[in-house]
Amino acid sequence: MPDLNLDVVGIGNALVDVITPCDDEFVTSHGVVKGSMTLIDTERAESLYRAMGPGVEMSGGSAANTMTGIASFGGRAGYVGKIAADQLGDVFAHDLRAVGVAFESQPARLGVPTGRSLILVTPDAQRTMNTYLGVAELLNPGDIDDAFVASGRVTYLEGYLWDRPEAMEAYRKAAAITHSAGGKVALTLSDSFCVERHREAFLDLVAEEVDILFANEAEITALFEVAHFDHALIEVRRLCEVAALTRSERGSVVAVDDEVVAVDAAPVERVADTTGAGDLYAAGFLFGFTQGYDLPTCGRLASVAAAEVITHVGARPLTSLARLAERYLP
Amino acid sequence: MPDLNLDVVGIGNALVDVITPCDDEFVTSHGVVKGSMTLIDTERAESLYRAMGPGVEMSGGSAANTMTGIASFGGRAGYVGKIAADQLGDVFAHDLRAVGVAFESQPARLGVPTGRSLILVTPDAQRTMNTYLGVAELLNPGDIDDAFVASGRVTYLEGYLWDRPEAMEAYRKAAAITHSAGGKVALTLSDSFCVERHREAFLDLVAEEVDILFANEAEITALFEVAHFDHALIEVRRLCEVAALTRSERGSVVAVDDEVVAVDAAPVERVADTTGAGDLYAAGFLFGFTQGYDLPTCGRLASVAAAEVITHVGARPLTSLARLAERYLP
Repeated sequence: MPDLNLDVVGIGNALVDVITPCDDEFVTSHGVVKGSMTLIDTERAESLYRAMGPGVEMSGGSAANTMTGIASFGGRAGYVGKIAADQLGDVFAHDLRAVGVAFESQPARLGVPTGRSLILVTPDAQRTMNTYLGVAELLNPGDIDDAFVASGRVTYLEGYLWDRPEAMEAYRKAAAITHSAGGKVALTLSDSFCVERHREAFLDLVAEEVDILFANEAEITALFEVAHFDHALIEVRRLCEVAALTRSERGSVVAVDDEVVAVDAAPVERVADTTGAGDLYAAGFLFGFTQGYDLPTCGRLASVAAAEVITHVGARPLTSLARLAERYLP
Repeated sequence: MPDLNLDVVGIGNALVDVITPCDDEFVTSHGVVKGSMTLIDTERAESLYRAMGPGVEMSGGSAANTMTGIASFGGRAGYVGKIAADQLGDVFAHDLRAVGVAFESQPARLGVPTGRSLILVTPDAQRTMNTYLGVAELLNPGDIDDAFVASGRVTYLEGYLWDRPEAMEAYRKAAAITHSAGGKVALTLSDSFCVERHREAFLDLVAEEVDILFANEAEITALFEVAHFDHALIEVRRLCEVAALTRSERGSVVAVDDEVVAVDAAPVERVADTTGAGDLYAAGFLFGFTQGYDLPTCGRLASVAAAEVITHVGARPLTSLARLAERYLP
């Protein structure tokens, strides 16, 4: 493998999103918690899909979205995730490579299809995700290529992969490779329900391996079982070198060493679909971080990227983040 | 089969659209004519897709788009087209049924995938379509179910199916069934290049079978090999009971028996993507026609539907056309 010299390597669930608008009643009547991510099996995926309105298919996957954001800023990103040799797998691989994200994972021929997330977008622009993981959940240590991961300065992991022990082993392997190569390990907690299901395992990994932690308010308070954001902030600073904690329209708080910076959310005229907001926040932050920008700049780049992605349907940027970032860069 | 009692049955190429924005230079450098539809083979589809930016997948197919428009107005629509038993075929079938279009064609297991159209949208909102027909082009008379077609008051055919003799035979069969059942046969010429390739065959079908003809200015002048729209209008009125001729932002001209009505285009603030404009024009017109509305109302419904679809990316309505139509209905 040629020296890729990547800024960030993302590892996560390789998914194609099926995005459909619906009313609140549809979400309620299908027994899902609005704003959350629920894992569903084949049968449930089929019955929910039958009930859903017409959809739009777009490549997704949390960490993959983040990598497209980094590429859109002009950073060098790579991705590791498991797709099948099928049409949705082709779409997923194409859409990553088309924006310049290095993706070398070979499609699996295991008779299990590429995963997809059925995303219900309600009139309040909230997204509720119902994810059929398909072959994505079979990610295992064998899928982690040493040279590929070592070529990145930051390895970025998504909490969504948590529900499978083998994926956790893959994470541990990637973290070890990254640290041996002198890189940093970043993690997003992804979903508060996921954190609640695997709190101890999350805490262990955060304490032992994670240098840069991303979380929203619900996730970080769930992780530390505290009622208040400020308490969670104190806790996370004990464990991680860098913490970037998002608070929706109230912006975010970023802590590095002795420095804590409050970052405003970037103004948005009309929120169309919040899918990808956290993913793109991480993209902006990690792009800034790997370029060596100061903390306030990293935070602003994060806010700008999150703001772009929530103005339209879909979890990946539709405009050049490099251009949007120009006014914030030295 | 239960009595479906359909307003319109559409027959056409069952396709999933892969829509991607690009600049004019990309279109030129890939040797396609802007605004046209070009048929491409597997190899070309793969190389063009590799060169394209990230895409959005949405169900398409000209006549299928028209049927979703009729359903959105509250009409009863059915569709006949050939999909494969694959992921894109599932998406296509789902998206039709999800809006209430009757679709009973069984997925084919012939080793040929569901067709797709790679649609390049330039900054001027023009779409250039590169269509890999896949299994769609294998439509043949055996796919035409007598009872299904006979249940519709209008059978709507797309000119895009023209390039295969067996599809033409399927058209002839569907037209015969429709006329025997007392229904009308409608045809859209679809594409001026397609008309030029098959002018004589088009003229024969129009003269022998078509009651309602849809065409834009380029298509209708190509059909009659005349320089001026007005001459084409005279010619078409000799051959068809109803003609609806579109002229982009200049609106359309609708002729029935002795009546000729000029219809204004509905105002559009910003054109995002012209894909589906003609398809939705036909939807509005045929909905009005099958509901027995007068000619000016049919024309206005057509304009309203076309205007909705060009304000966003994708060739199917995103808002209820029934609601948009309220102010135009008696």
